[in-house]
Amino acid sequence: MSEPVEPTDAGVRVRLDLAYDGSAFRGWAKQRDARTVQGVLEDALAVVLGPESPAPRLVVAGRTDAGVHARGQVAHLDLAARHVDHLERVGHGDATGALVRKLNGIAGRERDVRVRAARIAPAGFDARFSAVWRRYEYRIADALAERDPLDRAFTVWHPRALDAATMQAAAASLTGLHDWAAYCRPRPGSTTIRDLQAFSWERDARGVLVARLQADAFCHSMVRALVGATVAAGERILDARAPAVLRDARKRTAAFKVMPAAGLTLVEVGYPPDDELAERAARTRGLRSLPDDG
Amino acid sequence: MSEPVEPTDAGVRVRLDLAYDGSAFRGWAKQRDARTVQGVLEDALAVVLGPESPAPRLVVAGRTDAGVHARGQVAHLDLAARHVDHLERVGHGDATGALVRKLNGIAGRERDVRVRAARIAPAGFDARFSAVWRRYEYRIADALAERDPLDRAFTVWHPRALDAATMQAAAASLTGLHDWAAYCRPRPGSTTIRDLQAFSWERDARGVLVARLQADAFCHSMVRALVGATVAAGERILDARAPAVLRDARKRTAAFKVMPAAGLTLVEVGYPPDDELAERAARTRGLRSLPDDG
Repeated sequence: MSEPVEPTDAGVRVRLDLAYDGSAFRGWAKQRDARTVQGVLEDALAVVLGPESPAPRLVVAGRTDAGVHARGQVAHLDLAARHVDHLERVGHGDATGALVRKLNGIAGRERDVRVRAARIAPAGFDARFSAVWRRYEYRIADALAERDPLDRAFTVWHPRALDAATMQAAAASLTGLHDWAAYCRPRPGSTTIRDLQAFSWERDARGVLVARLQADAFCHSMVRALVGATVAAGERILDARAPAVLRDARKRTAAFKVMPAAGLTLVEVGYPPDDELAERAARTRGLRSLPDDG
Repeated sequence: MSEPVEPTDAGVRVRLDLAYDGSAFRGWAKQRDARTVQGVLEDALAVVLGPESPAPRLVVAGRTDAGVHARGQVAHLDLAARHVDHLERVGHGDATGALVRKLNGIAGRERDVRVRAARIAPAGFDARFSAVWRRYEYRIADALAERDPLDRAFTVWHPRALDAATMQAAAASLTGLHDWAAYCRPRPGSTTIRDLQAFSWERDARGVLVARLQADAFCHSMVRALVGATVAAGERILDARAPAVLRDARKRTAAFKVMPAAGLTLVEVGYPPDDELAERAARTRGLRSLPDDG
């Protein structure tokens, strides 16, 4: 008996860059009976690549929750040789160009998800495990900000005035490599140690409070919990030092809230140089079992 | 018999600054059986001021069409003395603050219309007739731009690549005081002479084409026709000089299209110094009968 041929052996790995308005999606991950980003894209892939063979699955850098948006999401998929042949035929030699056009024509009908680019991934690339950082933004229009109806899909309107300077001080005190158990919804088998590389709050030209957060990865609900803790400081419910003190207690707490999904956008995912991709992926798999990244 | 007291005699004129997402409105102007910005705000005013007296009517700077957005719309209303008394009571002395809060609490439930500010208008102020200019923006994500699902409510996605330099050249050639009959949907009794003070096209950081237009006032469908003529130049369907040549023919033409409403936002309305408001209003009324401004 011959060995079964792995479908990816003769094919290629493709990197997809994605943007979506999360408002009408039940998050990234495919679910039965719910509209999700992965579900919509994989269904479109099945149509594009033909029904006779199972369509490839998508692996994503940040598994965003229901209602969370993305401007710079990254995913990969493995195309079998017959898929590539098919795409080159319909794309007159430009397989990735055809993939973008076809996916946007089907999955992008509602215009709330968009394939920004598709390209052949470098060797060793894994959208999830090769990533070295994820960057998120959170937007709050408090009572001091201009509340713009045109931005309401991705900006939370907060009923009271917030103290931006206190929020920024609290955010700055939180960065670094720590155990974030106090900020993570626990998952069995998953570590809660993460490197929060950047966290800042500032008002934009219209007074909207914008948080920028970057970490090697975020555990489940971590970004929105970090935002909630600093908002509690901005409301003077917590002292500016409390979010770090609570973090170091490593216990879930009711001292702050997990903020709503609508204010959160995955902005960018960072990868190392091409020759470090495989090593990074192997190392990440070893360090963190079941990372969540959303 | 005593003279009937005008309701505004003992009251005040209030200036409202407004923003809205036009997607779910059939335009500004009140209509029976259609959701309009004026209708939603006047219905809310009736609730805020009590049902026993007719609620004041809103007079607006730019009567926007169905689907057109606004960030800097301006309107006025005349509050009778009893309305002011009522608002001062519920606002503990802050009548305009109470008006903003109450209107946003009722009209702003869907978050697609927002009263940004209310203040007592200076003497002689008329939101429509005192205005000296209106400024609009039009946004197109063509095939060269990044198409962001989060901006889709106020950005038109154009299927082909547009030549921004040609569009800018065509736009620059159009400015000045002219008869815009070729660019206006005709209305009986209305002049089509307008001063187009500024018109430019440029790409923003993500490649989105943004037009900025300013005029003393725009006649009906004029902004979207100007955008359509320059887009035809950007597609090389028209020569860059054709939009000005067509303008000077003063006849409606099928050489370009009126662009979709969704890309258009009223950004700002300009008023003269307070001591020139009344004179400007009187002069505008004399110069233009039935101006449309939308």
